[in-house]
Amino acid sequence: MIKKKSDDATIFIGDKPFMNYVTAAMLQFNSGNKEIFMKARGKHISRAVDVTEVLRNRFMNDVKVNNIEIGSEDVKSREGREMKVSTIKISLTK
Amino acid sequence: MIKKKSDDATIFIGDKPFMNYVTAAMLQFNSGNKEIFMKARGKHISRAVDVTEVLRNRFMNDVKVNNIEIGSEDVKSREGREMKVSTIKISLTK
Repeated sequence: MIKKKSDDATIFIGDKPFMNYVTAAMLQFNSGNKEIFMKARGKHISRAVDVTEVLRNRFMNDVKVNNIEIGSEDVKSREGREMKVSTIKISLTK
Repeated sequence: MIKKKSDDATIFIGDKPFMNYVTAAMLQFNSGNKEIFMKARGKHISRAVDVTEVLRNRFMNDVKVNNIEIGSEDVKSREGREMKVSTIKISLTK
């Protein structure tokens, strides 16, 4: 598998308008990527799933969920305390 | 694989106190289930991932994420309109 622009093929889901992420994913596939990743942490995990579902149900019916990984990362709170935050990484292929 | 009490082996993640779900999962494994499922919809999806991570990082280190499925379900809004809601189903094995 030839991966072009592999650095760009990861979309980090945050607080931007919802459709920004859907169109970013479409652009990645349309520019030749065969596999892209949706990544999110904490409360944005639900949003990463929403973006994925809207992408494949409404815009790109040939996109498949290839793999889903969950995990934890250490982050520092504003008070400097170590905390754990959950993560998700959704691999999508076309 | 012998599955006892397969109906009970699904934990629906909602708005109850966080540790309720962690202890429910521990009870399921300790009562002999080899596989349990964490299910959630919409904004509770992030919480299902959090519960899974706390369960396996802090309480049951031998629990593995076996499979994760995402999907969409049709629901009716209060005004009676058809809407889509995202879903997650996390299979955990011990």
